[in-house]
Amino acid sequence: MTDTFVIIGGDAAGMSAASKAKREDPDRNVIVFEKGEWVSYAACGMPYYVKGEVDELDDLVAVTPEEFREERDVDLRTGAEVVDIDREANLVTVETDDETYEQPYDDLLVATGASAIKPPFEGLDLEGVFTIHDMDEADAIEDYVTAHGPETAAIVGGGYVGIEMAEALSARGIDVHLYEMLPHVLQPFGEAVAEVVEDHLREQGIELHLETPVSGFDGADRVETVELEDGTVDADVAIVGVGVAPNTDLAEEAGIELGPTEAIETDEYGRTNDENVYAAGDCAEATNVVTGEPDHVPLALTANRAGRAIGQTVTGDPTPTGGTAGTAIVKAFDLGAARTGIIDEDRAHEAGFDPVSVTVSASTRAHYYPDGAELTVTLVADRESGKLLGGTVVGREGAKRIDTVATALTSGMTVSELQNADLAYAPPFSPVWDPILTAAKVLSGKLE
Amino acid sequence: MTDTFVIIGGDAAGMSAASKAKREDPDRNVIVFEKGEWVSYAACGMPYYVKGEVDELDDLVAVTPEEFREERDVDLRTGAEVVDIDREANLVTVETDDETYEQPYDDLLVATGASAIKPPFEGLDLEGVFTIHDMDEADAIEDYVTAHGPETAAIVGGGYVGIEMAEALSARGIDVHLYEMLPHVLQPFGEAVAEVVEDHLREQGIELHLETPVSGFDGADRVETVELEDGTVDADVAIVGVGVAPNTDLAEEAGIELGPTEAIETDEYGRTNDENVYAAGDCAEATNVVTGEPDHVPLALTANRAGRAIGQTVTGDPTPTGGTAGTAIVKAFDLGAARTGIIDEDRAHEAGFDPVSVTVSASTRAHYYPDGAELTVTLVADRESGKLLGGTVVGREGAKRIDTVATALTSGMTVSELQNADLAYAPPFSPVWDPILTAAKVLSGKLE
Repeated sequence: MTDTFVIIGGDAAGMSAASKAKREDPDRNVIVFEKGEWVSYAACGMPYYVKGEVDELDDLVAVTPEEFREERDVDLRTGAEVVDIDREANLVTVETDDETYEQPYDDLLVATGASAIKPPFEGLDLEGVFTIHDMDEADAIEDYVTAHGPETAAIVGGGYVGIEMAEALSARGIDVHLYEMLPHVLQPFGEAVAEVVEDHLREQGIELHLETPVSGFDGADRVETVELEDGTVDADVAIVGVGVAPNTDLAEEAGIELGPTEAIETDEYGRTNDENVYAAGDCAEATNVVTGEPDHVPLALTANRAGRAIGQTVTGDPTPTGGTAGTAIVKAFDLGAARTGIIDEDRAHEAGFDPVSVTVSASTRAHYYPDGAELTVTLVADRESGKLLGGTVVGREGAKRIDTVATALTSGMTVSELQNADLAYAPPFSPVWDPILTAAKVLSGKLE
Repeated sequence: MTDTFVIIGGDAAGMSAASKAKREDPDRNVIVFEKGEWVSYAACGMPYYVKGEVDELDDLVAVTPEEFREERDVDLRTGAEVVDIDREANLVTVETDDETYEQPYDDLLVATGASAIKPPFEGLDLEGVFTIHDMDEADAIEDYVTAHGPETAAIVGGGYVGIEMAEALSARGIDVHLYEMLPHVLQPFGEAVAEVVEDHLREQGIELHLETPVSGFDGADRVETVELEDGTVDADVAIVGVGVAPNTDLAEEAGIELGPTEAIETDEYGRTNDENVYAAGDCAEATNVVTGEPDHVPLALTANRAGRAIGQTVTGDPTPTGGTAGTAIVKAFDLGAARTGIIDEDRAHEAGFDPVSVTVSASTRAHYYPDGAELTVTLVADRESGKLLGGTVVGREGAKRIDTVATALTSGMTVSELQNADLAYAPPFSPVWDPILTAAKVLSGKLE
């Protein structure tokens, strides 16, 4: 009898696991339950659909359900929600529009993802108020903008989603107000990045309201105003992007343990406290490569990689899911901003480090070569060991240079080791000392 | 009495050493002898001067002689050639237009650079035939092109200089023929890069003559033809760029030892066989981070870094010069091509490895995001240890991603460690799996 690998959730982690398991062991019975209709889609691409740069929502789908079923021989069941996990009996209960049934498993992967946090705002259910975390929501925003031609948008939250949607709606000719309760946007990127991004957002005509908590929305038929502590501002459409929370209810009810971040706790192979139950993607923790501690970084690469590793592990080839450095990159109009590792001083102290940081600005190209851009680089290291802890970059080109820092973190380099990395130089591509190296050089001097 | 640090050669290595020594110890007597008039100039920028993208040769100078003298308090003597090193007496003999004198030293740095190789061609001294390795030569080419308006150019050698000059002369409206005696251009970048670059050069109208040795030039007053084995081709201007050789005569005559590459042998601090004599830059060896063996990589970053480290060492803070991964990047019209580490199979075998390689092509951005480009990535690893040995990339954008590979080499990562590096993803910047990660994933599978 062939083993059955059951997967709950059909996006990045789930479908990566399904594909890998079938590739490694074509005889295995691989069943994916997805409660919606979309699978293997790029949530990160949704703002560009709203912006109009991506024609069809379907373009965001990497592999279609038909391809999974026919080419990869995965038993993919959409519109099928798992409502219970019975770990004693090794089976899940599945509900569809038509029926409820039980499905036994040998190995189970919980890949239930995360959901947009819905803050306790008044008027959150008004027409024209959206969160953005799934494809149907992206579709609804696009439809609403097209149907109602809003003049003014309120975006609540200055994280990736907020900034990407500010760009998208601005491109649609809408006046955008961005509300952030903290002193800066892009909190996980640190102040050096935030200040550059904020200046740029303002240049692009975004009305930035920092340290401005929103208490809700108001309107008759649909949203008309944003409610602030000291008044109201007009808004014909509103997007709430204040973060995501892992979908853990199903797992918790089955006695699967959560970790310190409130996401599902896993070992290095993605196993939960039940050796036949794995968790991956936005619902699960991953190990931070800098601190060695559990972390919750709901991003696509972590999900894909962990899913793929688990697909390999269940077919008999134990494969670690790989750590996370919390690397992220975001486009804000003409800027790219990126971060990796531990930037925040408090978080570094909590992890037992004594953080020292520098911020430098340098050109992305040789000083005499045309069209270079200023890249602002921050690096953080531990004072005593010199160990690199994290970094950020922001500029009109070169944001992907964060990968150099991320690679250095993955391999546990010190700042002086990074300073000696032999990075590529030619006038059209970099100054002799790449801005990352310049930052490492300056930080190295500060550590002496 | 203050110590005297004498430096022979006023470009990257020499001036970096001078600046660093004065910064660390302002009282030190730092004397630089430069036989020409140019110091601290970007030789790599010369093609862009000829192309017309850089207005003045002076723009290529990072720090002027006046700045070195006045702001950095370096005793910089241009037009002063060191003709002898007396290691017994710790002094050098200096010749200027006006006088010959001796200068004692406590520490000496040989930073005499490299010179363009002059092959035994007939007609190499004809007017209109140039090598390009110093500023006066760049100036002469620019003058010649402006004065004579050549219609056809012959470039001999398909290395960086040849390809950059092909782009430069083509931009000046000249029909360019590029002659390479080997089967491919950019030999150190491997075939996968060469094929992409060759197609692109042809698209750009360059006449490529591969496996075509040149025997010389002919002409009455000035160059008129290139001489090949089986005929002649018209050429109104010719550039010979067949590589560089380290300037070691002065050091050799003083009994300073050369290494296996025929450049000056140094230890990890840049010291020669004489503990008071250092060597750095294009005349010296550096340690290859992959093989641990001496290597000769005459590139700017290696020179800058070694010079700076030696400036620090001589002032009492011993600082390793850092290894080289042989990282290089070159622009070929709209393409960027880059390499790092050990690509060549024979060289890998010589260093005791059993090389396995893969080449993959993948988009630089999410598949649905506009304006992505195909990036072709090659990675090479050792079969048994999985140790990463080298890599190349080529494409219309993203060539600087070689830095990820270079950083991995600097830290001695295996392919599976690289595969787990947490690189940055967002649709405008990368697919979920960056092309480097995709290549690592495929190579990792091949190693199993």
